Amino acid sequence: MTVLVVGSLALDNVRTPFGEVESALGGSCSYASVSASHFAPTAIVGVVGGDFPAGHLDLFRSRKIDTSGVEVVPDGKTFRWRGYYEYDMSQAHTLETQLNAFATFEPKIPEKLREADFVMLGNIDPELQLEVLRQVRRPRLTLLDTMNYWIEGKRAELMKVIEHCDIVLLNDAEARMLCDTVNLQVAARQLLTMGVKRVIIKKGEHGCLMFSANTFFAAPAFPLELVKDPTGAGDTFAGGFIGYLAAAPRLTEAVYRQAVVVGTAMAGFTVEDFSLQRLSALTPGEISGRCDKLLKHTKFNPVRLNKA
Amino acid sequence: MTVLVVGSLALDNVRTPFGEVESALGGSCSYASVSASHFAPTAIVGVVGGDFPAGHLDLFRSRKIDTSGVEVVPDGKTFRWRGYYEYDMSQAHTLETQLNAFATFEPKIPEKLREADFVMLGNIDPELQLEVLRQVRRPRLTLLDTMNYWIEGKRAELMKVIEHCDIVLLNDAEARMLCDTVNLQVAARQLLTMGVKRVIIKKGEHGCLMFSANTFFAAPAFPLELVKDPTGAGDTFAGGFIGYLAAAPRLTEAVYRQAVVVGTAMAGFTVEDFSLQRLSALTPGEISGRCDKLLKHTKFNPVRLNKA
Repeated sequence: MTVLVVGSLALDNVRTPFGEVESALGGSCSYASVSASHFAPTAIVGVVGGDFPAGHLDLFRSRKIDTSGVEVVPDGKTFRWRGYYEYDMSQAHTLETQLNAFATFEPKIPEKLREADFVMLGNIDPELQLEVLRQVRRPRLTLLDTMNYWIEGKRAELMKVIEHCDIVLLNDAEARMLCDTVNLQVAARQLLTMGVKRVIIKKGEHGCLMFSANTFFAAPAFPLELVKDPTGAGDTFAGGFIGYLAAAPRLTEAVYRQAVVVGTAMAGFTVEDFSLQRLSALTPGEISGRCDKLLKHTKFNPVRLNKA
Repeated sequence: MTVLVVGSLALDNVRTPFGEVESALGGSCSYASVSASHFAPTAIVGVVGGDFPAGHLDLFRSRKIDTSGVEVVPDGKTFRWRGYYEYDMSQAHTLETQLNAFATFEPKIPEKLREADFVMLGNIDPELQLEVLRQVRRPRLTLLDTMNYWIEGKRAELMKVIEHCDIVLLNDAEARMLCDTVNLQVAARQLLTMGVKRVIIKKGEHGCLMFSANTFFAAPAFPLELVKDPTGAGDTFAGGFIGYLAAAPRLTEAVYRQAVVVGTAMAGFTVEDFSLQRLSALTPGEISGRCDKLLKHTKFNPVRLNKA
């Protein structure tokens, strides 16, 4: 089944201790869709300016991603983010954000994409996310990503989107901020009482947690000795997660867990290189190889105790 | 086989958002030994003053812990720690540390305990840890715990202890500090090249990682909605870990992993109440119940990919 990803298409200038890139392909929609495209047919909706390099659109097409929902504003400019990471790569430092064409973006889902079964609302204004939900027709599953900026600035609107989504994806700091608690278990319970079916809390190098009303799953991150550029890791996770679900015959707890593992593996690939360089070139063998390793990293036998 | 724990015996005054205790039993030796005693015969070596309540020694004896190595300095005072935790319980704030009798402590291992097969060097001065290693006779396994204070103040001595130990236990901040890298994988590799057989990095609420030359294991923490007092969690982990190993017929990778899970379960119990209140009263059924839950929290099926 088809995955529809709505989010930002960006040109990123990123500097890390391991190098830098200029006007590289970025944005939540890019990472998530390319990640999802490894598992299921994928379509994107977003906006770019006349400055968006043809090569970037070619990358989507090489992954067989439907770009009919990409609006090009010929006399506008593409969303740009300029930032850097210090030696401790856990924190992105923003130097400049130019919204450009993205500032007046109004998502228009092409008619044939309104039937998409799996919809990912990438990290954009919650009001736009609501607008997307109005346009799609009874998707089987909606996945919401967001960030601290919207939690601070548009909490009420964000809460409304959350009420209408199946799965909410947050990082740990965002979950704490949104639910006003330091305890991630308490935060997840709170979101589950709002009608959300699953909550996934991303913890960067510490992996992620998935909560439903009666299940809990914890997955570690893929251990990497070299992280070149953490940009897009969360979006890549989300794309791999929803892409795997879209390709699965049924949505069971076991499948959701495998989807988390797939998302984890994909995020690990993204951070090993700048932009989408590693992510876009992956083979199924590489991906399942990492999933197998994650299984090896976490497996243990039941503990049987004798009274001491 | 017997576990010998050398470390601090303390009287703690602890305040958290959920209450406070005064002159409560604390110290690395207390938490570790009571934790280990649930799995294997355990003995302790440490020092207390004349002010150490008889009830605290009774607690050790009720757990059948051999206290023949506890030196009592009748006109001295017991090591005291006074501290508090804020709402974010990840950081202990020290208000006062009185070393008292501990300042001049010289571990003297009673003759019959020198044959102990499993030796835990709790978090004390590395010079004292070296002295303990001189006194014991060919233990099967030595486990070293330490803290930032010794990494900063006695790095050379600490490095010498590390070279003589089988397993090193650190938290993530300590591993980064000791190995001068932000990457925990790189830190662990570095310690493994020093002759250590295993490195375990504790990450508090994010669980822990265990490294050997050719294996890697990641375990999440036990998810808790209420943490009353985090004091002693790391020591409790260490005690459960080494206690489980001491009771195992063989030391295989599978057994080491189970020991990590047991340590994780035990640490979860400790933080649910102040001092050793919860830890000392556990039943085998409660412990294996938590281990079973950790298995459920981490289990997933192999991922098989079809080409998209």
